[in-house]
Amino acid sequence: MADNTQIVLVETPKGELAESHFELRQSPLPTPEEGQLLVRNILLSQDAANRAWMQGATYRAAVNPGDVMHGYAIGEVVESRAAGFSPGDVVAGEIGWQEFAALDAKSVQRCSDHRPLSHLHSVLGIAGKTAYHGLLNVPGIAEGETLVVSAAAGSVGSLVGQIGKIKGAHVVGIAGGAEKCDWVQAELGFDACIDYKNDDVSARLSELCPGGIDVYFDNVGGNILQSALFAMKLHGRISCCGAVSQYDGGSPASPVGIPGLLVVKRLRMEGFIVMDFLDRDQEAERDLKQWLESGQLKVIEDILDGLENAPRGLIGLLAGENRGKRMIRVGPDPA
Amino acid sequence: MADNTQIVLVETPKGELAESHFELRQSPLPTPEEGQLLVRNILLSQDAANRAWMQGATYRAAVNPGDVMHGYAIGEVVESRAAGFSPGDVVAGEIGWQEFAALDAKSVQRCSDHRPLSHLHSVLGIAGKTAYHGLLNVPGIAEGETLVVSAAAGSVGSLVGQIGKIKGAHVVGIAGGAEKCDWVQAELGFDACIDYKNDDVSARLSELCPGGIDVYFDNVGGNILQSALFAMKLHGRISCCGAVSQYDGGSPASPVGIPGLLVVKRLRMEGFIVMDFLDRDQEAERDLKQWLESGQLKVIEDILDGLENAPRGLIGLLAGENRGKRMIRVGPDPA
Repeated sequence: MADNTQIVLVETPKGELAESHFELRQSPLPTPEEGQLLVRNILLSQDAANRAWMQGATYRAAVNPGDVMHGYAIGEVVESRAAGFSPGDVVAGEIGWQEFAALDAKSVQRCSDHRPLSHLHSVLGIAGKTAYHGLLNVPGIAEGETLVVSAAAGSVGSLVGQIGKIKGAHVVGIAGGAEKCDWVQAELGFDACIDYKNDDVSARLSELCPGGIDVYFDNVGGNILQSALFAMKLHGRISCCGAVSQYDGGSPASPVGIPGLLVVKRLRMEGFIVMDFLDRDQEAERDLKQWLESGQLKVIEDILDGLENAPRGLIGLLAGENRGKRMIRVGPDPA
Repeated sequence: MADNTQIVLVETPKGELAESHFELRQSPLPTPEEGQLLVRNILLSQDAANRAWMQGATYRAAVNPGDVMHGYAIGEVVESRAAGFSPGDVVAGEIGWQEFAALDAKSVQRCSDHRPLSHLHSVLGIAGKTAYHGLLNVPGIAEGETLVVSAAAGSVGSLVGQIGKIKGAHVVGIAGGAEKCDWVQAELGFDACIDYKNDDVSARLSELCPGGIDVYFDNVGGNILQSALFAMKLHGRISCCGAVSQYDGGSPASPVGIPGLLVVKRLRMEGFIVMDFLDRDQEAERDLKQWLESGQLKVIEDILDGLENAPRGLIGLLAGENRGKRMIRVGPDPA
């Protein structure tokens, strides 16, 4: 236990992320200073945004070569030098891709006693709240409206579509591969799912949304955003959650027709970050828990075992191999 | 009076609009059918959107070769075959680029008795209402916020900036040429104006909006929209009114960083058309009239004399030569 296994970013990727951009190393266990906690990593969240952090400062600081890879995780307090925390407490924060971190107590959140812990990353965590706020508190959705969701099998998309169904919308997903699309319909209950790898997305959108799209929840940007823009209904709303198609390539491509299409169709496009809705998190938690208990919301989790699998896990996530919320189990739950 | 002078679009322009795309011709005076009015054209509105109509269907039908050029105008009823209208009534509608038109009575609006009539195209007309709704009812503006307006000397921009000042905003215009920029500050009271023909727009935006832009009112699209996007404050709002930079060239260019910048900065971009706010026009008219009477709002009009000058007028408008609302005086006011 004297060693701390860490995964370091050794090179800023220019194109696709590869395992060679990371290095595993052993470091001494960090010593918490006054006001800090020594935290043992249990479950590491993996998110497409992790790749965007390597491109420069976004809504947070960039990850630079030589840094232990950043990452949000749930862990257990092993040693406390801060008032109000004791060994055994379960907290969430920026533990990063390592077994142990010394964190400022002020920078961590105490976790609720909901179990399994994995739910605190998926349905009751950032994924769930991103889906909830990004759908209900950005564009909103009304009964009978047509909702299109990209990355429909992903951590956020899988929840957005299900919430859309709960709210009475006609829900069309977009995902990669026929098998995944079948699963999105059969398992998640979407009304339809377009396979962007094999279908003509624009043609299928016209077919499946004959009156146009009321709300497009965009996780991907690029060509799919382009197709959606052309298929929007007058006064349609686009919730911009992320642009996973743009993170792992060389040159980001903007859709054509901006701002012309926005004017002609009177569209609203709005970006958001889940942290902006902290003041409404209680409402989100209440609803998500209720839908979970009533069985209206299925939780889909995709957990890889072992910190050493974090690079492979993120690379696979960017290629769309995950179903639901991807995490890395770094260590066991607290005793 | 038996002849009707008309200007016809003879060719769809591919690049810049030229006088050769139009032809002047004499036609017989139209005969109104039952339910129609024969209307004499008095004041023809010219708008950048007229050029966009030639590119295909927008929020309205396209103008095709062989068509009398479309245009919104104020005219006098000469002959009425519709209940409720009499010769001498002043109406507004799609008279087009011609001296006379036979129009369905249902398609025209009766004008108020406000004079001069030109105000019904400028401050109390589509320009004024576009500025009012597009600023106050799309992004909104609060005291102390920073508002940037492109095409600041134009019909809409000149009013948006003034309304921004009335609402207590810090207002920065963008216009073409040092002389025009001086005029925007001295005459319209903007706090500053950037000369996009000679200044580095991005550098000047950083300088003049050190805390970032709260609201960008976009009349132009293209490179200036791009610069504004990078200069937006977190949670900034962009009102998409038009894209004059895109109408008269070959290939429209979208700004880079869509949707990435929208997410990272949590921006909202929203297109609108003034007709969407018909139900709030009374409120707009009340406020605009009051600001006009109190002298808080200066009306800038740019009226060319003679229908034959309509092609030249529109070409000049697209090149940014106008100050304030451009119109063509086709005939005298009613006796």
